[in-house]
Amino acid sequence: MFHGGDLDAARRAFPDAPEPWIDLSTGINPVPYPLPPFEASALQRLPSAVDLLALKRLAAEAYGAPGSEGVAAAPGSQILIETLPRLRARSNVAVVGPTYAEHAAAWARGGHAIEMVPDLPAAGRFEAVVVVNPNNPDGRVHDAGRLAEVARDLGARGGLLVVDEAFADFEPGFDEPGDLGPAVVRLRSFGKSYGLAGLRLGFALAEPGLARRIEAALGPWAVSGPAIAAGLAAFPDRAWRQEAALARAQDAARLDRMIERGGGRIVGGTSLFRTAVFADGPTLFRRLGEAGLYVRRFPERPNQLRFGLPPDKGAWCRLSRVLKPV
Amino acid sequence: MFHGGDLDAARRAFPDAPEPWIDLSTGINPVPYPLPPFEASALQRLPSAVDLLALKRLAAEAYGAPGSEGVAAAPGSQILIETLPRLRARSNVAVVGPTYAEHAAAWARGGHAIEMVPDLPAAGRFEAVVVVNPNNPDGRVHDAGRLAEVARDLGARGGLLVVDEAFADFEPGFDEPGDLGPAVVRLRSFGKSYGLAGLRLGFALAEPGLARRIEAALGPWAVSGPAIAAGLAAFPDRAWRQEAALARAQDAARLDRMIERGGGRIVGGTSLFRTAVFADGPTLFRRLGEAGLYVRRFPERPNQLRFGLPPDKGAWCRLSRVLKPV
Repeated sequence: MFHGGDLDAARRAFPDAPEPWIDLSTGINPVPYPLPPFEASALQRLPSAVDLLALKRLAAEAYGAPGSEGVAAAPGSQILIETLPRLRARSNVAVVGPTYAEHAAAWARGGHAIEMVPDLPAAGRFEAVVVVNPNNPDGRVHDAGRLAEVARDLGARGGLLVVDEAFADFEPGFDEPGDLGPAVVRLRSFGKSYGLAGLRLGFALAEPGLARRIEAALGPWAVSGPAIAAGLAAFPDRAWRQEAALARAQDAARLDRMIERGGGRIVGGTSLFRTAVFADGPTLFRRLGEAGLYVRRFPERPNQLRFGLPPDKGAWCRLSRVLKPV
Repeated sequence: MFHGGDLDAARRAFPDAPEPWIDLSTGINPVPYPLPPFEASALQRLPSAVDLLALKRLAAEAYGAPGSEGVAAAPGSQILIETLPRLRARSNVAVVGPTYAEHAAAWARGGHAIEMVPDLPAAGRFEAVVVVNPNNPDGRVHDAGRLAEVARDLGARGGLLVVDEAFADFEPGFDEPGDLGPAVVRLRSFGKSYGLAGLRLGFALAEPGLARRIEAALGPWAVSGPAIAAGLAAFPDRAWRQEAALARAQDAARLDRMIERGGGRIVGGTSLFRTAVFADGPTLFRRLGEAGLYVRRFPERPNQLRFGLPPDKGAWCRLSRVLKPV
């Protein structure tokens, strides 16, 4: 599986690049939530059931879910992607894409029949549908009415609609999803928007029976004490989240201007990453690498590159020097 | 599932107990490894593949495994218990017990046929065998020759021998297991002996193909940045581990004397917990609870109680007052 985030590989590929490298290959908020220090008990004791319940209540509120009983907490949303295919009998599964490749890979490992489809499929064709919303890497947002239709169709037939909202936190219109019915499981990533991906914290929002089955598959104490502590500190701080969403949207607009000035055509993205097509992607990737800038590339689309947000003034300047006007 | 560690439940059951409660219901080293502060990158960035590989090398060395390719790292050993039953076709599984109840529960959830057996079973009877060594809660250590026989039998038939060594770190004779062959997967818990259970870090030691399948089932980035950082800091400190093993063995001996003075008959245990039978377990559990001391009880064996190690002088004194000579 080809991922961003493997800065070590970039370092080996460009041994003469200036250090420190600037990693723009992920879509993680470069300005993390300012966590207080962890209490010793968060590291030492098994995570407490009371704290976990409090975390799930806050997550339900933050993500517009009816209540904590419809929330499953996990050590990152990735492990939820791995877990869902194992909770269903073998099915015909549509993955709307191109998209984040781990979905199709996980359903394939689970023995399901996968079909990649360019759009939300018509009623009745599949038993499970996976859609990333907003999509990674192109930022496409699916129409809420169409999603609700697909959810109703699948719900009437005991099917499953996985909506991966890993990049939805800073996008408008995702926090009040309404009642999507029994077929829908939404995935959320705490680490991306709060800039704390190392802590591993993600959530599945689903009808209570499915949420319980997901948690049972992970077993007790799946989420670490530090991850729980971070969620308990960060979720109630709505002001931080609003300001961060605004600041990252401004960063994204600035990044678009810089990319366009450098000859890129913006394909789309979210407030945490921007995807663009260039006349010669491989050469630009190499020039970025030689400057110690690591971006996400796509083996099947060599002219497409995805840029995370530069973390600081030095990173903006370095990127600007490579993306100088063509 | 009835667990230790749920101090909140004890607090509700004994509302008049003095605070702070002393939690002796788990088998976690009460003197944690003195971690340096986490670097910001451990919290913020996705865990790096290079760091994970370094962690697995250190784990292989610490646990006497041939190399990192035979190590799967996980967010706690509990999730490994959940994962293993899903990697096998439906089997006849022997669980040597009574033992930690999550093993049988996880294999049952995976659709396997479970039989509880009092001893390692004779050759040919089962396709998978689960044994906790040393056993929880009675501390029983299985004969290495018998384990090797069972491993050979299962290995010759494509079977699986799960040896849960969650409490083995401080016990003699577990660090040089030799080559146990392709059937064996050993589970190790970092959090218990290093006193860092909140971080969630555990390992499966197995032949490389099985280790890879376990890691694939968990997906990338399953282990958090803080957990990796803790392992990288703690594993190389062999002196700390040796001194901790000695100190906890002394604590365990002291705890045995206190329990026996209080009328208990020691059934067994490890350096991290002691299990004893009393004439009237429920009354003693209540007296301990009223004193703010939470120990592990066993619904099916009401006179048996399991004691973790008191963390400090105040805890030893409080326990001593309840376990006064009978």
